Amino acid sequence: MGQVAWKALFLSLFDYKTEKYVIAKNKKVGVLYRVVQLSILAYLVGWVFVVKKGYQDTDTSLQSSVITKLKGVAFTNTSELGERLWDVADYVIPPQGESVFFVMTNLIVTPNQRQDTCPESASIPDALCDNDTDCLEGEAVVAGNGVKTGRCLKDRDSTRGTCEILAWCPVEKRSKPKKPLLGSAENFTVYIKNSIRFPKFKFSKMNVLATDNESYLKSCRYSQEHPYCPIFVLGNIVRWAGGNFQEMASEGGVIGIQIEWNCDLDKAPSECNPHYSFSRLDNKSAETSISSGYNFRFAKYYRDAEGVDYRTLIKAYGIRFDVMVNGKAGKFNIIPTIINISSGLALMGAGAFFCDLVLLYLIKKSNFYRGKKYEEVKSSSRKSLSSPTLNGNQSPDQLGTL
Amino acid sequence: MGQVAWKALFLSLFDYKTEKYVIAKNKKVGVLYRVVQLSILAYLVGWVFVVKKGYQDTDTSLQSSVITKLKGVAFTNTSELGERLWDVADYVIPPQGESVFFVMTNLIVTPNQRQDTCPESASIPDALCDNDTDCLEGEAVVAGNGVKTGRCLKDRDSTRGTCEILAWCPVEKRSKPKKPLLGSAENFTVYIKNSIRFPKFKFSKMNVLATDNESYLKSCRYSQEHPYCPIFVLGNIVRWAGGNFQEMASEGGVIGIQIEWNCDLDKAPSECNPHYSFSRLDNKSAETSISSGYNFRFAKYYRDAEGVDYRTLIKAYGIRFDVMVNGKAGKFNIIPTIINISSGLALMGAGAFFCDLVLLYLIKKSNFYRGKKYEEVKSSSRKSLSSPTLNGNQSPDQLGTL
Amino acid sequence: MGQVAWKALFLSLFDYKTEKYVIAKNKKVGVLYRVVQLSILAYLVGWVFVVKKGYQDTDTSLQSSVITKLKGVAFTNTSELGERLWDVADYVIPPQGESVFFVMTNLIVTPNQRQDTCPESASIPDALCDNDTDCLEGEAVVAGNGVKTGRCLKDRDSTRGTCEILAWCPVEKRSKPKKPLLGSAENFTVYIKNSIRFPKFKFSKMNVLATDNESYLKSCRYSQEHPYCPIFVLGNIVRWAGGNFQEMASEGGVIGIQIEWNCDLDKAPSECNPHYSFSRLDNKSAETSISSGYNFRFAKYYRDAEGVDYRTLIKAYGIRFDVMVNGKAGKFNIIPTIINISSGLALMGAGAFFCDLVLLYLIKKSNFYRGKKYEEVKSSSRKSLSSPTLNGNQSPDQLGTL
Repeated sequence: MGQVAWKALFLSLFDYKTEKYVIAKNKKVGVLYRVVQLSILAYLVGWVFVVKKGYQDTDTSLQSSVITKLKGVAFTNTSELGERLWDVADYVIPPQGESVFFVMTNLIVTPNQRQDTCPESASIPDALCDNDTDCLEGEAVVAGNGVKTGRCLKDRDSTRGTCEILAWCPVEKRSKPKKPLLGSAENFTVYIKNSIRFPKFKFSKMNVLATDNESYLKSCRYSQEHPYCPIFVLGNIVRWAGGNFQEMASEGGVIGIQIEWNCDLDKAPSECNPHYSFSRLDNKSAETSISSGYNFRFAKYYRDAEGVDYRTLIKAYGIRFDVMVNGKAGKFNIIPTIINISSGLALMGAGAFFCDLVLLYLIKKSNFYRGKKYEEVKSSSRKSLSSPTLNGNQSPDQLGTL
Repeated sequence: MGQVAWKALFLSLFDYKTEKYVIAKNKKVGVLYRVVQLSILAYLVGWVFVVKKGYQDTDTSLQSSVITKLKGVAFTNTSELGERLWDVADYVIPPQGESVFFVMTNLIVTPNQRQDTCPESASIPDALCDNDTDCLEGEAVVAGNGVKTGRCLKDRDSTRGTCEILAWCPVEKRSKPKKPLLGSAENFTVYIKNSIRFPKFKFSKMNVLATDNESYLKSCRYSQEHPYCPIFVLGNIVRWAGGNFQEMASEGGVIGIQIEWNCDLDKAPSECNPHYSFSRLDNKSAETSISSGYNFRFAKYYRDAEGVDYRTLIKAYGIRFDVMVNGKAGKFNIIPTIINISSGLALMGAGAFFCDLVLLYLIKKSNFYRGKKYEEVKSSSRKSLSSPTLNGNQSPDQLGTL
Repeated sequence: MGQVAWKALFLSLFDYKTEKYVIAKNKKVGVLYRVVQLSILAYLVGWVFVVKKGYQDTDTSLQSSVITKLKGVAFTNTSELGERLWDVADYVIPPQGESVFFVMTNLIVTPNQRQDTCPESASIPDALCDNDTDCLEGEAVVAGNGVKTGRCLKDRDSTRGTCEILAWCPVEKRSKPKKPLLGSAENFTVYIKNSIRFPKFKFSKMNVLATDNESYLKSCRYSQEHPYCPIFVLGNIVRWAGGNFQEMASEGGVIGIQIEWNCDLDKAPSECNPHYSFSRLDNKSAETSISSGYNFRFAKYYRDAEGVDYRTLIKAYGIRFDVMVNGKAGKFNIIPTIINISSGLALMGAGAFFCDLVLLYLIKKSNFYRGKKYEEVKSSSRKSLSSPTLNGNQSPDQLGTL
C-alpha cells in the first residue's frame, strides 16, 4: 500500500497539478473580488513600494564624526572685570571643537578663593544658626560649600547668623548679572563639519559641499537660501529652536542641532544631503527652576609667590549645543522586496477567502454555489465506488431532493 | 487561437473564480486541521501580536541629550596637602556636566615639576642601568617619563642605578594612598537630566517629572520607591552596579548608567518612562591589572616670577560614569501588521499542505482520497473530448478496475 | 435560509476540505514548475537563511564604553621653547581618556598675552586701513582677534596700515612650523579598551582578551598577526587610514577608528570578536583649506604678582582620534524565521500562478486545460439543477460546440 503510494507519488512528480476552479458567473462577487484585488495592488505598489520604499533594505546605525569651530569676539566693560575682550579661547568650553560645545554667555566670578574659614552663604537653609550648637563641627553643609567648624557667626545686633565653614573662601555670592555679559555672542558663528558613514552600505559623505569656490564656504551663512552652507549664526540657531537668545544667554540652556541624513542610495550620492533642524533640549516649558537653564562651575588655579594655591571660581551660564546626527539609508535589496510582495500575495488569498464567504453564505444562491464549490465524497458505501461520477458532483441540498 | 484566448480571458474577467474543494468526510484529518489552524492563530495573536507587538513599527535610533550636575564637598587632611576642602570645581572632570563625567576620588600629586634632569623612577625596567652605556643618550625610556641623557646615576654603595633623564622633574613616585582620599564621595549626589527624541515618531520626553512640586525634585533620591527621581547617590549607583565604592574609589573604575526608554506610543505619553540600570564597565572579573581600574594624568601649569613654567602633575584615580541612553519606541503601523498577518495566512497554507500529506498518504483510505483530490485529464485521445464528464472524475485506481 | 447555512456550516466544521487539483499530464509545465520550486527553495535556504541569516533577530543598537590611554614622550628643542619634553599630560587633550581624544603634534605658541591694545594681524582683510575712519571704534574685526579702537596704525613710510584693536595682545602671528614639532608622536601607543553590550540580548563583552598572560597585553601591538591586541601605534593607525603621519601631524586631521562587533550569538561568545578598521574623517581629498586639517585654540591662564591675568595662547594642530563603535548581533528568533519561510511559501504560490499562465495561455493545448481547470456553473436556468453533472464539467469552448 505505502509502496504503491510512494511509487505513484514518484511517477506523478512531473505531472503539473493545478487547483481546480469553479467559475461562478456572478458579476456581483466577481466585481467585488476585482475591487479587492485592485485595492490590494494599489496599497502594495502605492504605499508599500512608492511611499515606504518597501523594496529597500535600510541602515539606521550610522557612524558620524563632528568638528565644530567658533568665530567671534566680545567686548565687555564691567565694574568687576573692567574692560575685557573675550575670544574663542575664553568662552568656548571645551576648546577642542567636538560635537558638544558650550558657549559661555554669562558668569559669576569669585576671584582669589583660598582654603580658609568664612561664613557660609546665608542663602543656604542648612547653614543658618542661632548658636554654635547648630553648627556641628566637621559636618558638611547640605548643598553648601564646605564643612562646619562649629562656630556660628552673627552680626553684632542680629539674633540669627550663619555657620562658619572651612571652604574655598570667600564663598560665591549668589547673584548673576540680569543682563547677559556676552550678549553679543548672538553674532558669533559656528562652522559645523560632519562626516558620516553607513557601514552596512559602505557609504560615506560630508556636509561640506565639495566645491572649489572656497570663498563661498568662508562667507556663506546657513539659511533657507543656503541649505548646504555649514556655517551657522548662533542667534539664528536659537531663534529657529524657538528660543530667545538674550534670555537663554542669561539663564543658560541647551540647544540640539539635529543633522538628519535620509539617503536613498539607489539614487546618485549627490542626492544624499543633510537636513538640519534645531530644538531646545532643556524643557523651558516646565517652569521647575531645577530643570531649566544650564550652568556649571569651574575654577582657574593659581599659585602665589609663597607657593600657596588660590583660585578663581567661575559659575558659567551659557548655551550648550549638542550636535546630534542621525540618519537612515535605504538601498534596493531582494529580501524585503520579496517579503513585501509575498505579503501582498498572501493578502490576495485573504481577499479571496473573504469573497468566498460572500459567495457561499451571503448571496441569494449561495446554497447552490456551496454545492458546486465543495464536492462531497463518501468512501464508506460500496455504492460510492460503483458510481463515482454520480455522487461526485452532488451538493448536500441536491442529495436532499433525491 | 491566441485571439480567442485573450477574448475569453477578457470576458471572464468578471466571473468569480473560486477553488474547488473536495470535502473529505474524515473527522480525524478534519480535527487535525482545525488544531493546526487554532495553534497558528494562537501563535499569531498571542505571541506575535500581544507579546511581541508585531503590529507596531519600531524606532530604535533615538536622539538623546544628557545634563549632569554633581553636589557635595569633601574635607581631607593629609601630610602632603594639609587641610583641604574639595568641591565640585575640584573633583569633577570635565566640569561641563556632560553624559560622561569623572569623579576624582584618589590622587597622586607630584608638585613643582620643572623641565630638568633627574633619575628615572626605579620601577621602570628599561631605566635600570649598570653603567652609562646602558643609557643611550636621546633615547626615550620605554613606558617612562623622559629621554635618557646618557648618564647612569647610582647611589654611592650600590652597583645598579637608574638612567638620568630629561623630563618634568622630579618624576612621579609610584605610590598612591591605599585608602581613597575622597572616600566621602560616596555621599555625593548627581542630578541626571535626560531628554530624548524619537525622530521617526517626532516624540520627545524628559526623565524629569513635569511636576510643580519643585521641593520634591530637590530633596528626592532615586530608589525603588522613587523610580522617577533623577537624583542619584554615587554610593548607591556603585552598589547597584555590584561594586564596592571604597575599593573602586582607590583603584578607579567605570560605571555605566543605562537609561532605557521602552515606549509604546499607542498608549499615553505618560506611560513612556525611563528605566535605569547600572553596571560596571571595566571588567573587574578578569584580574589583569592592565584592564581593571581607571586613572589618568593631568597637570596644572603655573609660571613663576621669572616666567618659567612649572606644573603640578596629578595622577587621578576615580570613577567615571558613562550615562548611556538607548530606547525603543513602537507605534501601530499597517505594514508590519500586514506582514505578520499574511505570514500567518501563508502558515495556514503550510498547515493545509501538511494535512494533505496525512490525508493522501498516511491514512487507510488515502488512496481513494488521492483519486478524488487529483482529477486526471488526458488530452491525447479524441475520446477524452467527447466524454469529458466521464474521465473527469476518474481516479487512477478506478481506471484500473475498468 | 441563513439558518440552514449556519447549520450546514457548523456540521461541516470537522470535514476536512482540500483543494481539488487537476493533474495536467504535461511534462513541460511540470518540469518548469519543479524548476521554479527548486530555485525558490534554493534562494530561501541558500541566500535568505545561510547567507543573510534570515532566521535571526538582530540588534543594532549597542551600548558601548571606551577607555583610551596613551603612552610616549617626545623631546623638542626649538628657539621659542628651548629644550622641552612633552609627556602625556602635555599633549593629550582632553586628559580623561574618552572615546574621542586629541594628540597635539604641532602648535603656535603666543606667550604673555594681556588685555591691551595692539595692531591687528595684517593677514586679516577687514583690519587693513588707510586712515582712522577705516577703523570704526568699537566694531569687532570680522574673523579677527578684537574690537577696533578707532585708530589706524601705520609704519612711518607706508600708506596702508592695520587697525589698532583692543584684544589679548600681542595677537597671534600666523605662522606654524612646517615640520611638525612632535613628529615623534608617530611612535606613541594608545591602549583602547572597549566594552559593549547588546541590550536586547543582554550580552556583554570586551575587546581585551580575558587572558592570564598579562605581559602579552603589555607588550603586544595590534597588527594582522595580533588582531585582538588592544594596543595601537599611532603611526600605524594613520598609515592604515591611508594618511601620511608627518603631513597630518603638521596640518592636523581626524582619524576614525571603527570598532565593529558583528556577533552571531547562536555561536559561542568567544566567536564574537571586534573588527577594527581605520579611516580618515576630514576629507583631505577636497582641497578646500577650510574643511581639511584640524586645529583649535586654547589658553593657559596665569596671574602675575599684581594679580593681573595674562595667558599663553596655543593654537594646537594635531590628530583627533574618534573611536566609533558599532555592531550587530543576531540570535535565532521564531518570528523572522516564520516571516521568511512563509514569504517563501507565498512565492511558491506566485510560481504556481506563473505556471498556470503558461499552461492556460501559452502552450498548444492550453484551451483544453483551461476547460478542465475552470468548471463553469450556471445557476439561472432550472435545467441546471436537474443535470448538474452535465454542465458541471463543461468548459467554454465545449459549450460552443453544442
